[in-house]
Amino acid sequence: MNRLEKQLAFIMELDRLKTVIRRSYICGGMRRENSAEHSWHAALIALLLAEYSDAPIDPIRTMKMMLIHDIVEIDAGDSFIYDVDAVGTQEERERIAADRIFGLLPKDQAHELRGLWEEFEAQETPEAKFAKAADRLIPMLHNYHSQGKSWNEHGVNREMVLDANSRIADASHALWEYARGLVDAACRQEFLKE
Amino acid sequence: MNRLEKQLAFIMELDRLKTVIRRSYICGGMRRENSAEHSWHAALIALLLAEYSDAPIDPIRTMKMMLIHDIVEIDAGDSFIYDVDAVGTQEERERIAADRIFGLLPKDQAHELRGLWEEFEAQETPEAKFAKAADRLIPMLHNYHSQGKSWNEHGVNREMVLDANSRIADASHALWEYARGLVDAACRQEFLKE
Repeated sequence: MNRLEKQLAFIMELDRLKTVIRRSYICGGMRRENSAEHSWHAALIALLLAEYSDAPIDPIRTMKMMLIHDIVEIDAGDSFIYDVDAVGTQEERERIAADRIFGLLPKDQAHELRGLWEEFEAQETPEAKFAKAADRLIPMLHNYHSQGKSWNEHGVNREMVLDANSRIADASHALWEYARGLVDAACRQEFLKE
Repeated sequence: MNRLEKQLAFIMELDRLKTVIRRSYICGGMRRENSAEHSWHAALIALLLAEYSDAPIDPIRTMKMMLIHDIVEIDAGDSFIYDVDAVGTQEERERIAADRIFGLLPKDQAHELRGLWEEFEAQETPEAKFAKAADRLIPMLHNYHSQGKSWNEHGVNREMVLDANSRIADASHALWEYARGLVDAACRQEFLKE
């Protein structure tokens, strides 16, 4: 394959992320969300909320990271953060997926995107931490705006939400304060159990 | 509303783009595509194929343009490029939508994203032209990989495809050459009518 053919093979492979279904519901509970539309939403959120990162970050780098952060799910599937068993084998499954999927691209582009994905996974740079915070904030917003639909389907309570999402605080105190406010409001409205 | 509340109001509004359904089918015809997942795909395509622009372009600017190019469809709906009636009123409907939707954001961010959208619509800069080319190439790829499913549903023939997509050539001769090859192959395989 020539360079353009390799790029287009990767691009057509990306299409399959539109069929990976997450636990979150869009638009007040209409249907469950797929990982491609989630990645679009996450990229814009990272761009628009970058100013709330406690450490200075490059918004563009963070946005690119969000665009590709879930691509490995094409092979490895979505891992629900409250599903402890799936999380256990997630790392190995995702590494194998990354080898195959990023490997479709010409070497220079494979190297760039794989690097961004590794950076996201390693959770060491401020960009990776902020990307993770944005990624965690979105399902909280979706749950809040669908009266806790996904939380209730999976028996998730207040403590579990706060535990699973507390790393938002590693990147942004402002967003964590906002997220805790959402949890309090969800409890007051009785669609999140204490 | 304070600044963060305005930003989150816009972010929650974005969720509705996931319910705007296009004519194209994903993954070989499984279901029709929505404009949010399309925008994610388009942003990555612009980033990965930027090297094929005939004029030098800023890939990041083009990628951001792709992320927001369809947001007005939240109010104005998707306009099918082969539907001449809808295209007639599209401009006014989309301008009103842009006023409302970008207007949810704090002024500085509204100004930046609205500017990118206006630039895309005006089709004057190399970035806008390349973004349009990428936007046009995707449904051609989807049609090719679904045996012309959307083309055939809407009675679209070879000449109509070449006419509607010829502006790809304004941005990239390499991509236009590839696209014409797809059309030829679709005709040879008899899922696009001469």
